[in-house]
Amino acid sequence: MTKKTRTETDSFGPIAVPADKLWGAQTERSRQNFRIGGQRMPIEVIHAYGLLKQAAADANIKLKKLDTRLGKAIIQAAGEVASGQWDEHFPLVVWQTGSGTQTNMNINEVVANRANEILGGKRGDKKPVHPNDQVNYGQSSNDSFPTAMHIAAARQIEDAVLPALRHLQKALDRKAREFAKTIKIGRTHLQDATPITLGQEFSAYAMQLTLGIERIRAALPRLYAVPQGGTAVGTGLNAAKGFDKAFVQCLKRRTKLPFTMARNKFEGMAAHDAMVEISGVYNVIACSLMKIGNDIRLLGSGPRSGLGELALPENEPGSSIMPGKVNPTQAEALTMVAAQVMGNHVAVSVAGASGHLELNVFKPVIIFNVLTSGNLIATVCRSFADNCVVGITANTGRIKELLDQSLMLVTALNPHIGYDNAAKVAKKAHREGTSLKEAALALGLLNEKQFDAWVRPEKMIGPE
Amino acid sequence: MTKKTRTETDSFGPIAVPADKLWGAQTERSRQNFRIGGQRMPIEVIHAYGLLKQAAADANIKLKKLDTRLGKAIIQAAGEVASGQWDEHFPLVVWQTGSGTQTNMNINEVVANRANEILGGKRGDKKPVHPNDQVNYGQSSNDSFPTAMHIAAARQIEDAVLPALRHLQKALDRKAREFAKTIKIGRTHLQDATPITLGQEFSAYAMQLTLGIERIRAALPRLYAVPQGGTAVGTGLNAAKGFDKAFVQCLKRRTKLPFTMARNKFEGMAAHDAMVEISGVYNVIACSLMKIGNDIRLLGSGPRSGLGELALPENEPGSSIMPGKVNPTQAEALTMVAAQVMGNHVAVSVAGASGHLELNVFKPVIIFNVLTSGNLIATVCRSFADNCVVGITANTGRIKELLDQSLMLVTALNPHIGYDNAAKVAKKAHREGTSLKEAALALGLLNEKQFDAWVRPEKMIGPE
Amino acid sequence: MTKKTRTETDSFGPIAVPADKLWGAQTERSRQNFRIGGQRMPIEVIHAYGLLKQAAADANIKLKKLDTRLGKAIIQAAGEVASGQWDEHFPLVVWQTGSGTQTNMNINEVVANRANEILGGKRGDKKPVHPNDQVNYGQSSNDSFPTAMHIAAARQIEDAVLPALRHLQKALDRKAREFAKTIKIGRTHLQDATPITLGQEFSAYAMQLTLGIERIRAALPRLYAVPQGGTAVGTGLNAAKGFDKAFVQCLKRRTKLPFTMARNKFEGMAAHDAMVEISGVYNVIACSLMKIGNDIRLLGSGPRSGLGELALPENEPGSSIMPGKVNPTQAEALTMVAAQVMGNHVAVSVAGASGHLELNVFKPVIIFNVLTSGNLIATVCRSFADNCVVGITANTGRIKELLDQSLMLVTALNPHIGYDNAAKVAKKAHREGTSLKEAALALGLLNEKQFDAWVRPEKMIGPE
Amino acid sequence: MTKKTRTETDSFGPIAVPADKLWGAQTERSRQNFRIGGQRMPIEVIHAYGLLKQAAADANIKLKKLDTRLGKAIIQAAGEVASGQWDEHFPLVVWQTGSGTQTNMNINEVVANRANEILGGKRGDKKPVHPNDQVNYGQSSNDSFPTAMHIAAARQIEDAVLPALRHLQKALDRKAREFAKTIKIGRTHLQDATPITLGQEFSAYAMQLTLGIERIRAALPRLYAVPQGGTAVGTGLNAAKGFDKAFVQCLKRRTKLPFTMARNKFEGMAAHDAMVEISGVYNVIACSLMKIGNDIRLLGSGPRSGLGELALPENEPGSSIMPGKVNPTQAEALTMVAAQVMGNHVAVSVAGASGHLELNVFKPVIIFNVLTSGNLIATVCRSFADNCVVGITANTGRIKELLDQSLMLVTALNPHIGYDNAAKVAKKAHREGTSLKEAALALGLLNEKQFDAWVRPEKMIGPE
Repeated sequence: MTKKTRTETDSFGPIAVPADKLWGAQTERSRQNFRIGGQRMPIEVIHAYGLLKQAAADANIKLKKLDTRLGKAIIQAAGEVASGQWDEHFPLVVWQTGSGTQTNMNINEVVANRANEILGGKRGDKKPVHPNDQVNYGQSSNDSFPTAMHIAAARQIEDAVLPALRHLQKALDRKAREFAKTIKIGRTHLQDATPITLGQEFSAYAMQLTLGIERIRAALPRLYAVPQGGTAVGTGLNAAKGFDKAFVQCLKRRTKLPFTMARNKFEGMAAHDAMVEISGVYNVIACSLMKIGNDIRLLGSGPRSGLGELALPENEPGSSIMPGKVNPTQAEALTMVAAQVMGNHVAVSVAGASGHLELNVFKPVIIFNVLTSGNLIATVCRSFADNCVVGITANTGRIKELLDQSLMLVTALNPHIGYDNAAKVAKKAHREGTSLKEAALALGLLNEKQFDAWVRPEKMIGPE
Repeated sequence: MTKKTRTETDSFGPIAVPADKLWGAQTERSRQNFRIGGQRMPIEVIHAYGLLKQAAADANIKLKKLDTRLGKAIIQAAGEVASGQWDEHFPLVVWQTGSGTQTNMNINEVVANRANEILGGKRGDKKPVHPNDQVNYGQSSNDSFPTAMHIAAARQIEDAVLPALRHLQKALDRKAREFAKTIKIGRTHLQDATPITLGQEFSAYAMQLTLGIERIRAALPRLYAVPQGGTAVGTGLNAAKGFDKAFVQCLKRRTKLPFTMARNKFEGMAAHDAMVEISGVYNVIACSLMKIGNDIRLLGSGPRSGLGELALPENEPGSSIMPGKVNPTQAEALTMVAAQVMGNHVAVSVAGASGHLELNVFKPVIIFNVLTSGNLIATVCRSFADNCVVGITANTGRIKELLDQSLMLVTALNPHIGYDNAAKVAKKAHREGTSLKEAALALGLLNEKQFDAWVRPEKMIGPE
Repeated sequence: MTKKTRTETDSFGPIAVPADKLWGAQTERSRQNFRIGGQRMPIEVIHAYGLLKQAAADANIKLKKLDTRLGKAIIQAAGEVASGQWDEHFPLVVWQTGSGTQTNMNINEVVANRANEILGGKRGDKKPVHPNDQVNYGQSSNDSFPTAMHIAAARQIEDAVLPALRHLQKALDRKAREFAKTIKIGRTHLQDATPITLGQEFSAYAMQLTLGIERIRAALPRLYAVPQGGTAVGTGLNAAKGFDKAFVQCLKRRTKLPFTMARNKFEGMAAHDAMVEISGVYNVIACSLMKIGNDIRLLGSGPRSGLGELALPENEPGSSIMPGKVNPTQAEALTMVAAQVMGNHVAVSVAGASGHLELNVFKPVIIFNVLTSGNLIATVCRSFADNCVVGITANTGRIKELLDQSLMLVTALNPHIGYDNAAKVAKKAHREGTSLKEAALALGLLNEKQFDAWVRPEKMIGPE
Repeated sequence: MTKKTRTETDSFGPIAVPADKLWGAQTERSRQNFRIGGQRMPIEVIHAYGLLKQAAADANIKLKKLDTRLGKAIIQAAGEVASGQWDEHFPLVVWQTGSGTQTNMNINEVVANRANEILGGKRGDKKPVHPNDQVNYGQSSNDSFPTAMHIAAARQIEDAVLPALRHLQKALDRKAREFAKTIKIGRTHLQDATPITLGQEFSAYAMQLTLGIERIRAALPRLYAVPQGGTAVGTGLNAAKGFDKAFVQCLKRRTKLPFTMARNKFEGMAAHDAMVEISGVYNVIACSLMKIGNDIRLLGSGPRSGLGELALPENEPGSSIMPGKVNPTQAEALTMVAAQVMGNHVAVSVAGASGHLELNVFKPVIIFNVLTSGNLIATVCRSFADNCVVGITANTGRIKELLDQSLMLVTALNPHIGYDNAAKVAKKAHREGTSLKEAALALGLLNEKQFDAWVRPEKMIGPE
């Protein structure tokens, strides 16, 4: 199984790389030195880096730091990377150098080799386009990797996370309206409480999504701020004056997203608080989803010996041993994702807290978890909306039965006979297994007409 | 040790309570049934509840649901609670019912007993003011406890957390300006890198604080939204129409803080996403503080065999066995607090994810952790600012020595001789233990004049 | 409010301390420099330190490093500390130096002052007993604080945690036997499944506790290993040869617990993996308790519109607005504690991962969380056992009703008619709202006699 | 792109599946209904399930519940699955039903189709071997999936995790012996402390690994206990009497691992405390690795302006902008893995705490994280050992320089002149920038001969 190779070189000397791959010496070294785990650097980072290298070349051409002909080849090659044309040429794993330098060099090497091909040169020659001197001009991994992190996370949010949250929000909101008139028993402490409508219950879920969307929006300003231009330690050494500003303008133009210059580039490289923050918002959303998933499976429990208020869509057989069993599988996937996102958040937090001096060197693990969480939230929200929420129906007969027998309708008597007397009624009915009305009349606290006028579930789903 | 008692009653019957205490039957039952842990319900919740009961009485008087004379007594009594006059009358622990009902009843009982005293009645009589029928009128624990949670957390943020963050931000910013001209070696991966100023380093810390403040501000709109008026399950049963709106107006007036009605009361009672969110922001701040504390102790390491760039204030002897040792103790307290806040955040997240249907019954543990984290952040930021940051000085001799011998000044040669040649210079100097200049000249890549013109640390702390 | 003071001195000079307190200069400095949070160093650490100072004096006397007369006074004074006689003389908070040096000095100062009093001297004189030169002889905070951590955690485990776990285990096991014949519907995915006995359900809870106890036991060997004798950095400098061994023998004698010398003292001071491990076991127990608490409240949900299989003890009124409501409050306290312990575990893990070189300086926050978790688990297990478990009764009527109507009894038909046919029966019955038997007969898959012989819940609670 | 399909059926009816794949209807439904995330069910679970199906068939043949001819075909087919021959036929993701039923059915379907092929039948016919009635005979997903979880985790531990931990332990231990005579400055609080040998430092790392191995061993008994035989809810319905015992014997024989019957099958299906426990041990190991990685990079910091005591192997260029820079990249990968494992542990804990009644339905997310953590620890320990530890050398010149100038050698004077006097010496030397000896002599506390006799680093690395 001898594969053809060619020789690439870096400051450590020559090394053989697969001939059919665009990567160079540093990528190859990383591939050999980091046989860990197997989780690839997320492809979203690679694509974001493609855009970044385009914007950097744009800016360097504009600032006359890069020959236009070379620059155009770089822009074309980087665009191919951004569009996913060379995904297999990015073999590195997450567990590499903590600055992401090896991935930055992977990009630099692929873009340089590809640009040289475009310009009629050949792989491995590093000319006319050199991975460091041209593709990486005025950049360091230390400023560009965090910038790519921000680009990747922001694009995922705009393209996938927010649309999916809105999709689920709408599905829940539609159910809230569909069930607006379905009066049912409320439950607090999992115990019978006063009435509520099924629509009101779903409105809470929809609101959790709405607020989740607002939370992301509230965090975005700090995600859109990128430290590009800081180069090695934040000072901007070897970047052209004005590069940061020009870069951000080009990036905004290419992405149509409102990126800004980080107010303090040192902060943007030495810490990743903005990533911890967005992960924290994902963690809130995970908590929302856990609550929603738990509620849905609880309300759909049964079919005969549970609460049974909801009928969930039956998508597949539920059991390998119990015939006919159907389970709330979408809710289970949803809540498993929630647990994962909560765990990922701790990984991000530990990593985010662990920077030293001018650089946080937990960058790959941070962006890996942020993107994983974003992707999980986006895909599970769609799956849950489409394969569960839209098909939920109310078991109205069961709902009415449970409502009618409830003792907590007694609460409506508080303003009329006082809390202490009302408690006596409820306790007597509970103890003796009677209806509230029977107990109330037996205690002589009111007459039948009063009871019927006061205890009306349909009057109990709002104030007054 | 027989203590005098009096008899109080609730729907479970009579029970003896200490005669000198204002609490009633339900408080006493909780005290006996929950001998767990010992952590008291945070006093900030009690004070917030005092304000809440005032605002509720205001609103009920206005809506003619509460007799003015009784209402005024309630307002006076609740005001005394809010001001801290009766702190010892709130003995309950965090580990009680998950709705906080027992603490709400503790408040209702204390306020009722005290109001009755004010009105000439006596403790235990429940008249003319009844804890449920008047003090709790139009309220449930289920809407009032979360409202008290929001009030307590918001007041702590405005009164303690934000001022302390600003205090530390200013102290760091002042150092950033003081050290603006102190050029030193930068470090990435803990390895020597290109120059930076000590002021730039501190500016990153100051910016982390600035952004932390912005993060809190960005989350506040959701913290200021309170579900009061939802009563038992969010519908508002037994609250007067318009109570929610009137309540919020009164609360705003009494607190001078911009509280709003929750857009969806069901959400505000069944979930505590807003608390998970604010805890998530505290978690970000904890990550910032961990980074800052670690950096400070690293830069101050020594005195002779560490980096030794900073001299930290000496506040106390550092060792019980090593005479003369002085340690970065404030940084240690800071980073221990960071670890605690990160842990508290997980407790809040797990609890926040665990609501069922109309109610999250992890309310006490959630607010306990949020307030603990808020208090820890506020107090440690002040302590760290006052006992450490303000007294930090730069060891300029040491800083210069470390800078001058650095090999990473070679980076300035990239634009002149290219990355690969520059790498050769650095490696040769490193291998042979020489200066960069010696290595560069030996390699014949440039002349002395060029070297001196290009490699100038003071030119390396910004772009161009 | 001028309080009387006396002057104490340390290597930083003189300082005024309250005249009525036994602490000295270093304690006082810490009190003033660390106004953070307010959480006191857990008193269990103080008591453990008392024992430690006794054992150290024992050993030093034996090794002729400490004058017997002075040593005896130290032993008496330290014994008073261990017994809780001087608890108010230990005012320091958790958020101090990360080595716990200030608490070690607090002990040294109190013991020295008290020993000097015993010997006829007076407070502040440091003679004949000096806090460092005698009380701390052959010790450093760096080896003694971790030793005190291990002693405190191990004693709490033996005295409180394990007995409480056994107590709850027994209560659950008793219920398992009491409910051994109560056949009920099983539920998987919260959906109806095949029958189980209520006793079998409780046996799982009891087993979780049994295994929790085994988990603690499995971790104890590493907790019983103490690094005393390592002094400042683990080498044992300034400790007498053999001190470590003599110390452990004396400690074993005084505590009756099987302490051992750490195999590697460097490890025992630089890392606290043994604490992270025990916290990890508490985290497992928390997960067990969360499951148990959630199940109990679910099975006890109702009283009329929930599962309603269990009747939980009614200990107090459940609602400030809903009269007669009773809630599963002990389960709520239990699950809140579980959330807290899970959070504390993350704090311990972050802190445990954060040591540097010869010392982990997150010692106080680590032991604070480990002891808090231990105390919470111990007290909540007792409360839950005594106030909930022992009073649980089975609602046998309800249980039978739910069992009889279940469709999952169909599983018993698998071996007779195959999974696919059995699925048809269940689905038909579900769709048409009939009994299983009606559906099975209508499909002609078996006759009535066969059905009655095969579908018998009492045959379905075991193999064959 | 029309791919050839065939029709498979389940109780939901017919469905088209790819003709070239062995999976059936239920797998196909899951594939379509759970387009979430993309993380595949770990292949270790699939292989473990192959072994499980073999052992189950062994036992059922033995118990005469399975026709021998069919059983042998099942054993052959399942063996092919176990050996990795059909990995591409297991397309399902982690985010499916929480019981893992869909993966169990995936196995059942592949094995049935393959067994039928072996027996001369064809795919999709379900005869003579039916996925439920034969392959799954006497089993449920609810008992077999957790059993597969335990098998997969235990095999990974024995085959990969423990060997890798031992490998790293040995590498560290070898360095401890190599550096046994290299006396250097110790550091506590990152501040200069008393001397230690570099070997002693490394011995602590090696001991952390040794103890990590012991921790895993201590947890294994609970991992080796499997609930197979519990079937749907733990009772064993539809399994042959004695199946559990026979199964475990066959499993032990096939795996050569000491599996046992779970003492309580209900516990083993309703909870996954054993998984939380093993994840907790991985978390301890992660904390150890974080400490080791941080220390190594700190000791290797420099090359000129850091501590510089260690020279780490140079494996690749470190910077895209700073020529000649070499970074501690293996330590960075190590600590990133540590952060990930700490996060995974929280996901496992949240999931492990979230079971309901007879089943925990977070099984896939739990085993996904446990196996991911196990794999990351195993691979990173090997990489770190081979690419970093073995190549570490001591910079003895630098080490001696730092030791000689240390002030903390003063500690050796405590027994001779007392702590307070020794403190004066150290402080004077620090303040005036002199050597300790100069300061000591100037203070007249001892003579030169005494100083030279007492202050000898080589005497300071042990007691006495």
